[in-house]
Amino acid sequence: MLILTVDRKSPVPPYRQIRDRVIALVESGDLAPGDRLPATRRLARSAGVHRSTVLRAYGELWSLGYLRSRPGSYSTISRPRRTGAAPHAAGASLIDWEGTARRTGVRTQEQTPWVPPGIARGRDVVDFATFSADPRLAPVDDLRRCLKAVLLERGRELLDYGDPSGHPALKEALLRRMRVHGVEVAADELMITSGAQHALDLVLRLLAKRGDVAVVESPTYAAAVRLFRLHGLELRGVPMLPTGMDLDTLARVLRRRRPALVYTMPTFHNPTGISTSGEHRQRLLRLCESSRVPLVEDGFEEDLKYSGKIALPVKAIDRHGVAIYLGTFSKVVFPGLRIGWIAAPRDCIRRLVAIRRASSLSGVALVQAATARLCNLGLYDACLRRIHASYRGRMQRMLDGLASWMPAGAEWTRPEGGSTLLLTPRGAAADEEALRERLLHAGVRVEPGRPFFPHAPDRPHFRLSISRVDEEEIEEGCRRMGRALA
Amino acid sequence: MLILTVDRKSPVPPYRQIRDRVIALVESGDLAPGDRLPATRRLARSAGVHRSTVLRAYGELWSLGYLRSRPGSYSTISRPRRTGAAPHAAGASLIDWEGTARRTGVRTQEQTPWVPPGIARGRDVVDFATFSADPRLAPVDDLRRCLKAVLLERGRELLDYGDPSGHPALKEALLRRMRVHGVEVAADELMITSGAQHALDLVLRLLAKRGDVAVVESPTYAAAVRLFRLHGLELRGVPMLPTGMDLDTLARVLRRRRPALVYTMPTFHNPTGISTSGEHRQRLLRLCESSRVPLVEDGFEEDLKYSGKIALPVKAIDRHGVAIYLGTFSKVVFPGLRIGWIAAPRDCIRRLVAIRRASSLSGVALVQAATARLCNLGLYDACLRRIHASYRGRMQRMLDGLASWMPAGAEWTRPEGGSTLLLTPRGAAADEEALRERLLHAGVRVEPGRPFFPHAPDRPHFRLSISRVDEEEIEEGCRRMGRALA
Repeated sequence: MLILTVDRKSPVPPYRQIRDRVIALVESGDLAPGDRLPATRRLARSAGVHRSTVLRAYGELWSLGYLRSRPGSYSTISRPRRTGAAPHAAGASLIDWEGTARRTGVRTQEQTPWVPPGIARGRDVVDFATFSADPRLAPVDDLRRCLKAVLLERGRELLDYGDPSGHPALKEALLRRMRVHGVEVAADELMITSGAQHALDLVLRLLAKRGDVAVVESPTYAAAVRLFRLHGLELRGVPMLPTGMDLDTLARVLRRRRPALVYTMPTFHNPTGISTSGEHRQRLLRLCESSRVPLVEDGFEEDLKYSGKIALPVKAIDRHGVAIYLGTFSKVVFPGLRIGWIAAPRDCIRRLVAIRRASSLSGVALVQAATARLCNLGLYDACLRRIHASYRGRMQRMLDGLASWMPAGAEWTRPEGGSTLLLTPRGAAADEEALRERLLHAGVRVEPGRPFFPHAPDRPHFRLSISRVDEEEIEEGCRRMGRALA
Repeated sequence: MLILTVDRKSPVPPYRQIRDRVIALVESGDLAPGDRLPATRRLARSAGVHRSTVLRAYGELWSLGYLRSRPGSYSTISRPRRTGAAPHAAGASLIDWEGTARRTGVRTQEQTPWVPPGIARGRDVVDFATFSADPRLAPVDDLRRCLKAVLLERGRELLDYGDPSGHPALKEALLRRMRVHGVEVAADELMITSGAQHALDLVLRLLAKRGDVAVVESPTYAAAVRLFRLHGLELRGVPMLPTGMDLDTLARVLRRRRPALVYTMPTFHNPTGISTSGEHRQRLLRLCESSRVPLVEDGFEEDLKYSGKIALPVKAIDRHGVAIYLGTFSKVVFPGLRIGWIAAPRDCIRRLVAIRRASSLSGVALVQAATARLCNLGLYDACLRRIHASYRGRMQRMLDGLASWMPAGAEWTRPEGGSTLLLTPRGAAADEEALRERLLHAGVRVEPGRPFFPHAPDRPHFRLSISRVDEEEIEEGCRRMGRALA
């Protein structure tokens, strides 16, 4: 009769002690194939553990091939058919992964390690680096109630495979939101994605192939640069003027070589925060129309128009189906829910949905349905009003603080909404990384400008975000920066 | 003074009536820029609506440019700067989307329209076609409680941007699950994906480029065929024998031209349900090792080993880091949560995480955390036991039913677990689509075999799934099929 004891002081969980003891007994020959194991109830009693512990141990033994279970009978020992090998030693791989990545053109090594957002909070560091909807303003309880409600109403359906183009209720809510911004599209001209980054990825899969040229603003969104590079695209950067992308340069670029697409952020451009005028948007659209190049409009902060002076999206004036609009909730609420969308001509959407379906089937219908409910109950709008009120004050404080504390020669953009601006310290020769370290040492975290530029800029830049700092922190941060950069 | 009335019987929501009426008055010139609108409270009272209705109408008017709001003051009419254009007419697009897709090699047009799973339920049709974890066995209430608990515990953190490699708690739970199947990998040899399809997509992005050859079983998973085609890969199908992929043919293929990868489903292969022996797995691994070709092992039904006779995954014996293992919860619970994972050498995982991060930042940490909790509380295991008990009975009933009712000459596979088998009706010349129609007419929905084959097969086949039918339905379905195919 097998006696198994459990050491309650051991850090090894009891079920694993039982499992490993049986394995050792089999491997040593003390237990032989065909031997009976005690009934779970009996072993639980004798070892002084809960029966579920024994069940779990037996379950794993069975999975590993050490146990044979017959319905309504005892478990008997079995010997797993050894195929001769232990798992591979760490790092020892016959495959040349680096060479593989080089061959397939996947250049990913330049990436910095991922850090959780707002890592600086709690220490005495003012966090101007993190750019992500302020979680302190997020209606977490509202979302919890919405999740509960949709799960109770139609949980089984929402937890099954969902529509690759997105959950219908959220699509409707998004059509209404787009209408608020003057964009009238039909249900089959819109699809939901797993965030705006995923939306851009789908668009690039359709529009571009390796070696193609993509026209981007310079600077442009750093994570978009990474994605363009992943797709093997050659980037042609068009300088940002204080009024937006330099359209004279764009016109020349478009005359020379037809790019696969033009990528733009007309509203609260990341990182500069610059918004373009209605006229600029119109001319940009005309340029793309006349060269028949798709215009990819990233409206990531469309909802952050708290000053009331910003033009409608380009998509709102797109009469000839040239614009592909990317939207997201992530800069307002819940970036972790990964919800974005695309509004585009239906022939384009149809193909994008097919790519989405082939590459990842669908998004998470449950969170899409809960988000639709959040919108339909007006809870999203309520959150937006709170954010507007708060960000308006923060941005003003930031602009005032920079005016008060920055040394002469420093330059910065003056956004009329959104969350970010670009600071250019004086001194072209300064080393960006050294300056960033100096600022961190002075108690201010800023985002380095370099990754936002398709080609290395000739001066250091920093992106400052107001999404994780209150007005007092902003004031204090500006003061620290002013001293550090003096 | 502006009088606005609301028609409560209209299907148009009150806020939109107000919005549209104001727009009409501005467009007709009855309201001019600078004119004051009534205060929201007053208009709400006079129109007999809630104030939030007026606020919503004013908000949209403001977004559309018809309203100017000054803090602490009345709203005044503004005239949106017209940029001259209405949204583009449906279908009229200057971009040649078809030509674009042809140029970039995106072949997606062969896809059938998406239909919600289990569409046949509720009518008198036996659904052998749908293959998706049975929602009737899914612990929806458990999941709801887990979601609530993790939201209360750390909602703000879970709703922010998350780790691109996956939520740490779920990674730990998955490492434990992999250990149950004999796979010992470290934390940096595992990543979470948005389902197994997404996992395969990431792997293909790393391993293959357009024009490369991918070796697959013939038949193989239909959605994988679509994905390989999306990546522009040439498929080399190796016939499935009753014992698994024909390894003599594979050896010849590997000698001729080095493929980018070999894709295999050793356990409960989709669609045939065939599982290979430990010896088969060992030889398959050796073949890939000696030609240094990555072996992509799709373990989509690893947990559906309810008969106790199935070998450990190839990954469990992978000493030389050649195997990339794909896992998923979707065939057991909650396919809609889109959770899959990859276990692979760390040099491979590191690159895959970089691709995931560049292409979609991260998955939904909230559902990953809730799933981890489901696993850690033993609720997933409890669900698995219910599924095992139920599927074991269903599969037996299916095999018995086919033996009883199929006419002589029909052939079918005899899986020892999982959810699917492949039926090959007699008569090589028969038209698959016509036979499928005939079966549907007789009250049985089956999945056509054609999409599972990389090259058109010479006989019709149907995949039968037990995931959405109870034992009585199975019996009845077999009887109907027998009569229809007689």
